[in-house]
Amino acid sequence: MDQSDLKAPMWQLSERARKLTSSAIREILKVTERPEVISFAGGLPSPATFPAERMRAAADRILRDEPAAALQYSATEGFAPLREWIAKRYSVNGAQIRASQVLITTGSQQALDLLGKVLVCPDSPVLVETPTYLGALQSFSMYEPRYVQVPTDEHGLIPEALTPELTAGARLLYAQPNFQNPTGRRLPIERRRALAQFAKTAPFPVIEDDPYGALDYAGEPLPTMLSMAPDHIVHLGSFSKVLAPGLRVGYIIAPEELIFKLVQAKQATDLHTPSFTQRIVYEVIKDGFLDTHVPTIRELYRNQCAAMLAALERYMPEGVSWNRPEGGMFVWVNLPAQIDSMKLLEEAVAQNVAFVPGGPFFANEAQHNTLRLSFVTVPPARIDEGVSRLAALIRAKI
Amino acid sequence: MDQSDLKAPMWQLSERARKLTSSAIREILKVTERPEVISFAGGLPSPATFPAERMRAAADRILRDEPAAALQYSATEGFAPLREWIAKRYSVNGAQIRASQVLITTGSQQALDLLGKVLVCPDSPVLVETPTYLGALQSFSMYEPRYVQVPTDEHGLIPEALTPELTAGARLLYAQPNFQNPTGRRLPIERRRALAQFAKTAPFPVIEDDPYGALDYAGEPLPTMLSMAPDHIVHLGSFSKVLAPGLRVGYIIAPEELIFKLVQAKQATDLHTPSFTQRIVYEVIKDGFLDTHVPTIRELYRNQCAAMLAALERYMPEGVSWNRPEGGMFVWVNLPAQIDSMKLLEEAVAQNVAFVPGGPFFANEAQHNTLRLSFVTVPPARIDEGVSRLAALIRAKI
Repeated sequence: MDQSDLKAPMWQLSERARKLTSSAIREILKVTERPEVISFAGGLPSPATFPAERMRAAADRILRDEPAAALQYSATEGFAPLREWIAKRYSVNGAQIRASQVLITTGSQQALDLLGKVLVCPDSPVLVETPTYLGALQSFSMYEPRYVQVPTDEHGLIPEALTPELTAGARLLYAQPNFQNPTGRRLPIERRRALAQFAKTAPFPVIEDDPYGALDYAGEPLPTMLSMAPDHIVHLGSFSKVLAPGLRVGYIIAPEELIFKLVQAKQATDLHTPSFTQRIVYEVIKDGFLDTHVPTIRELYRNQCAAMLAALERYMPEGVSWNRPEGGMFVWVNLPAQIDSMKLLEEAVAQNVAFVPGGPFFANEAQHNTLRLSFVTVPPARIDEGVSRLAALIRAKI
Repeated sequence: MDQSDLKAPMWQLSERARKLTSSAIREILKVTERPEVISFAGGLPSPATFPAERMRAAADRILRDEPAAALQYSATEGFAPLREWIAKRYSVNGAQIRASQVLITTGSQQALDLLGKVLVCPDSPVLVETPTYLGALQSFSMYEPRYVQVPTDEHGLIPEALTPELTAGARLLYAQPNFQNPTGRRLPIERRRALAQFAKTAPFPVIEDDPYGALDYAGEPLPTMLSMAPDHIVHLGSFSKVLAPGLRVGYIIAPEELIFKLVQAKQATDLHTPSFTQRIVYEVIKDGFLDTHVPTIRELYRNQCAAMLAALERYMPEGVSWNRPEGGMFVWVNLPAQIDSMKLLEEAVAQNVAFVPGGPFFANEAQHNTLRLSFVTVPPARIDEGVSRLAALIRAKI
């Protein structure tokens, strides 16, 4: 037999790659693509909110008028008019953000990868919320940190918990203050002020990841920590939830010294975010489109959130609790301590209902009696039916 | 003074980030954007080759007929029809490539980053050509390898040099067999066979990076090493040089076991390459467009390459030598040993001519009397004028 008929040899992998394991959840959730499954598992925005016709007109205008620039290599930092638009957008409440503080990224996920690359060393402490965004854990883990969980309560991260003992040697603190994935919690104004104050003297950056900030149902956003400490907060934003995720356009706002290093890291990572998609985003938003578009997304999600809260109220047995989000895409459910949501998921999928178990959102010690529900892609009648089935399964375990 | 008035604090950076330094070349080359500069420095394809109208029609069709899919999150592996198209394209010369062996990347640069992530540990040996592609050095360096230079001659990498001593402990061998950046060299068929044979028993992957393979001026491509050892070669491809780089669509073809790890690493890096740009590429190429389009690019570059070779012949003094590329975008020039091309660049820029000094393309010991010339974006008359000025500067130093 010729050796080319052999299967691939066992090549030696990096330590970080050896730690990567297949996700049990992902295997279970693969079945949720069947149309009969009522899926509360998705973190996907509703395609009903994508401004497809505006994007179509933008793409056409760009490829007609400026194809050579839109299809050529471009600056690692990003499309200058888009960077300026973002800087202006965030120059509120007295903060002055410069375009030189803005780096365009290939989705907000890339921002997490670049921050890990530039800040995290093996075994260096990284502070995260309890629980925290799973995608951030995946990104940072490639740089092999030691996670330290910052205590939280129903309002989110507790600033007083950031003692010198807890934060010693940390390379960064990662938080989602607005409608956190997975809990849907919003950090109150007093805690934002305390955390921004903390950032001003901390020897490491506080990262304010904010993909959901525009989705507050009342249209009354709280000030960002960036506006409170513009030279000390690293702010991550995204167009995925307010325009469309398939374009993969996000951004980092940070002090120039850090942007300089992040640009070098990004150049080594993908040279630059696609010139064409950056221009589409700018073309669509430059005349104030988001100001009329985002309220329509808020209304859709607010109604579906209300449908889910009503269904939870109607069906869930005593001993089950959940939060009432003021925005975003998620509800966080606490089950009685003896119920493992991973096992519950298997039973739920057999009943054509899906959700994401809470365990993987914890960096270290996990609370396995928790789960995340998303309501954004499910119509109200199906939400009612899905929650009803889920409640029946839980009731049978109490 | 309020602390928020202070400049950003000095945050502790990762070891890999501290090693990043600003490029002296980049600083010098910033001035080359002035229109009076004749720049042979670019690695950019000519925008005259971008099929803008076809892309415009494709973008329009996609956003009219399938906006929900084109604008939504999508699979990390990439757009399935595009993966199938690539697998079929490479199933030649008896090799059978499966779509499951194909991962779509955000440009070929991301392929290098992902391979570094998955294969390279601090201080582990990485084998590279002498000289090698600068962008690959940038990507791999983020994972802190120890570079080992594989000896080359005017035909490229010398397979016999891959002794057990030289390759001990290596995690990968990186090579560009077609019209290498920076030398323009093409690896002969016998060496390809020898290297493919080497790959079949090596305990590490041989990476065949092939952004320029389609650009052979005679239209007589040599077989890829992938076709000779489809289960043992990792092949990188790109649409940047045959369609347009601004879309950032490249791909990795590798054994499924490695693809599986690369997919996990990519998920942590940017979730997926933009759904929309992948669909544009597929829409443009699916009916055989490249078969008529690529020959027009070849012809343009062949003519400009001929103009550059004629000018070098006409103006360069004794003691200067260069290769005669059979394809691609670059000519590699050897100067007399006493001439440092970095210093020459400063003088050349003062005369409104630019090129890239050869030094940074060497992983370890550099040959500073080398330089890279690109002819693809400069019309023949300007090529003649630019080479004439450059030759005069060199002549003055001999």
